[in-house]
Amino acid sequence: MASSLGHFACHGSPAAASPTPSLLGRFSPDFCALAALRPIRPAAAGAKPPRDATTSTEQEQQEQEQQLASSWRGAYEEPSPSPSVSSTEAQDPSALRVGIIGFGNFGQFIARGIQRQGHAVLATSRSDYSEYCSAHGIRFFRSLEALCEEQPDVLLVCSSILSTESVVRATPLAKLRPDTIVADVLSVKQFPRNLLLEILPPEFGIVCTHPMFGPESGKHGWSKLPFVYDKVRVAEEGGQKAKCDRFLSIFEQEGCRMVEMTCAEHDRHAAGSQFITHTIGRVLAQLNLQSTPINTKGYETLLQLTENTVSDSFDLYYGLFMYNVNATEQMDKLDRAFDDVKQMLYGRLHGVLRKQIVERVPMPGAPSSRSREGRESPAANTQETKPLSPSPCHTFSTVAFSTAKC
Amino acid sequence: MASSLGHFACHGSPAAASPTPSLLGRFSPDFCALAALRPIRPAAAGAKPPRDATTSTEQEQQEQEQQLASSWRGAYEEPSPSPSVSSTEAQDPSALRVGIIGFGNFGQFIARGIQRQGHAVLATSRSDYSEYCSAHGIRFFRSLEALCEEQPDVLLVCSSILSTESVVRATPLAKLRPDTIVADVLSVKQFPRNLLLEILPPEFGIVCTHPMFGPESGKHGWSKLPFVYDKVRVAEEGGQKAKCDRFLSIFEQEGCRMVEMTCAEHDRHAAGSQFITHTIGRVLAQLNLQSTPINTKGYETLLQLTENTVSDSFDLYYGLFMYNVNATEQMDKLDRAFDDVKQMLYGRLHGVLRKQIVERVPMPGAPSSRSREGRESPAANTQETKPLSPSPCHTFSTVAFSTAKC
Repeated sequence: MASSLGHFACHGSPAAASPTPSLLGRFSPDFCALAALRPIRPAAAGAKPPRDATTSTEQEQQEQEQQLASSWRGAYEEPSPSPSVSSTEAQDPSALRVGIIGFGNFGQFIARGIQRQGHAVLATSRSDYSEYCSAHGIRFFRSLEALCEEQPDVLLVCSSILSTESVVRATPLAKLRPDTIVADVLSVKQFPRNLLLEILPPEFGIVCTHPMFGPESGKHGWSKLPFVYDKVRVAEEGGQKAKCDRFLSIFEQEGCRMVEMTCAEHDRHAAGSQFITHTIGRVLAQLNLQSTPINTKGYETLLQLTENTVSDSFDLYYGLFMYNVNATEQMDKLDRAFDDVKQMLYGRLHGVLRKQIVERVPMPGAPSSRSREGRESPAANTQETKPLSPSPCHTFSTVAFSTAKC
Repeated sequence: MASSLGHFACHGSPAAASPTPSLLGRFSPDFCALAALRPIRPAAAGAKPPRDATTSTEQEQQEQEQQLASSWRGAYEEPSPSPSVSSTEAQDPSALRVGIIGFGNFGQFIARGIQRQGHAVLATSRSDYSEYCSAHGIRFFRSLEALCEEQPDVLLVCSSILSTESVVRATPLAKLRPDTIVADVLSVKQFPRNLLLEILPPEFGIVCTHPMFGPESGKHGWSKLPFVYDKVRVAEEGGQKAKCDRFLSIFEQEGCRMVEMTCAEHDRHAAGSQFITHTIGRVLAQLNLQSTPINTKGYETLLQLTENTVSDSFDLYYGLFMYNVNATEQMDKLDRAFDDVKQMLYGRLHGVLRKQIVERVPMPGAPSSRSREGRESPAANTQETKPLSPSPCHTFSTVAFSTAKC
């Protein structure tokens, strides 16, 4: 850890003198610093089965990389690289060597696309994926330092939102080539953009991406699936631009719908869509919805959404909230929308009943006196006589009956 | 109207003396009486295109039958039946003659299934569907009285929740055979059950049903789609039982998944599923969700749900709320669930920040002094510097920065 931070510090100084301060977005995401205070969960045993398309992009990062950062401290004490398999890198001289940090389900998923496009994958992770890598022609490194010593063309951070800052800070940047491109795949984008701009030496390229799919939705190919990217800092001179284009072409060639937008724009869209989706899923999960014998198709979609949401960790949802500056605004809007709907229901009810009480409008359809008598009969079918739950309706119902005429 | 009500009054008395008061569920739905106070919308010009599966069952009833009740008063002044087409009733002597009240999109949709199973359909509606009926071998009647004079075996009420009571009360029951089966297709079931038990003569059969599908979800057939029914009152003697079985066999033969349950049980399930689904759709509609260039699949399902929900009238949603005694309880649960999620997010945030403020735990990842300086630079990239929206996060963020060390 000490040496890693040393490398960082060494690179940190030039970054401070970067001639492009305007790119830094100085109001950097406010909560990144809080990540380190979070308790770290125990490490997962290994790769997990694929999950839902909606959220799996983050979920894998979450599960695997949340622990990644904490483990670096120990792992990087190891002095020498120890790839678990011999190199099976692509022979094409224009092929990229992509080093993936965090090799859980999502990292593996992305690696398959990279390999399909003829590029080489190098990987490191807190957990030992050497066996998986051996079987898939990937060089696995037991430490981040070892991976960096291989000087990959692109360093692809596949860590969770909450652990990304620690992971990036622990990366021995001095071991990398100065024109390295660092990319990420987080579901929030302003945070990694500002973090990478702050931490990386100015020569490093920065490409922030968000594949809006995962192992489940992408299991039949990536065709038409949206891939968001922002070439945050790519030098026009030298080979960095070509490397960046080659990296992005992986996703283009796989058929993704390439969406270039700023990180800020992404976060605005994502808060109003992805975060809202997760929030609805979380709310429904709290309701403990059950399948019924009479599910409508609409209800089935909500059940599916709930299942997908809870299959992700709460940390992911928390990350979407904490690391997107637009999330609280969306939360407030959702709050107001729910209040509006309640107001429409109860307000209309109130209006109808007030009409009876104040304007003395009779209720032609109110239960007749004989049905009121029947209600007092011990022979009444109790199965069908569930009383109203406490609510404004209940409050008014007695009045409604008492004014009934029919 | 006067004569219709006269018939009703005539039948009403024997019903009061019914020997089966325990079936009446004397705590009849409390809000049925309020329907008549509602403003009546202008009549739709004609049949509307099919809509979503989730909700179309009610939507059609809503649109067409909301006006139906109000129109009876005028329409039923007509003294004589005037079928718009000559009878094309089925020749099979065991075929039923099913009279449908309310012949909008949903009534027509159900009629097609009835006809496919070899039964005859007679129809009446506020709007003039004589042309449609003429083209589809259905006898159309311009008044409810005229339809009843034909003495159908089954009277199928396809009206909206809000208008059903008025429709049933306006039906000239004396013109019908005493063993007539009256059935409904509402999305709530305790309300029509209790209403029909209260209003219909004791000899009349009562079958409450809820096809959990509509023109959209059922456009490729009804196979496997749930059909809920409750044989509320069917005489074992005489031909009523056989008629009821023949009526239900229509849906069974069409492939529906037949679900027999009490009306109370239906309403419990429906409040926790269908009503919740509509509520989520309504809340999302209030948010005015927009499609983004980066929709996830989960978000797409929410957009679809919203579209389906708002294609139904608010009256339908109001009906699901007002006429299901379990709806307010579900609304309260949803309210609490949303509060719980907010509490989990903001509570965790609060916990982290309190740790810094009270326990003075440093934040290793907080923005460095140079980035804070940069934030004050006029050259900062304003595109990326959207401030936090007003929220608890915002309240604490300044404190977080002020204690930052890195």
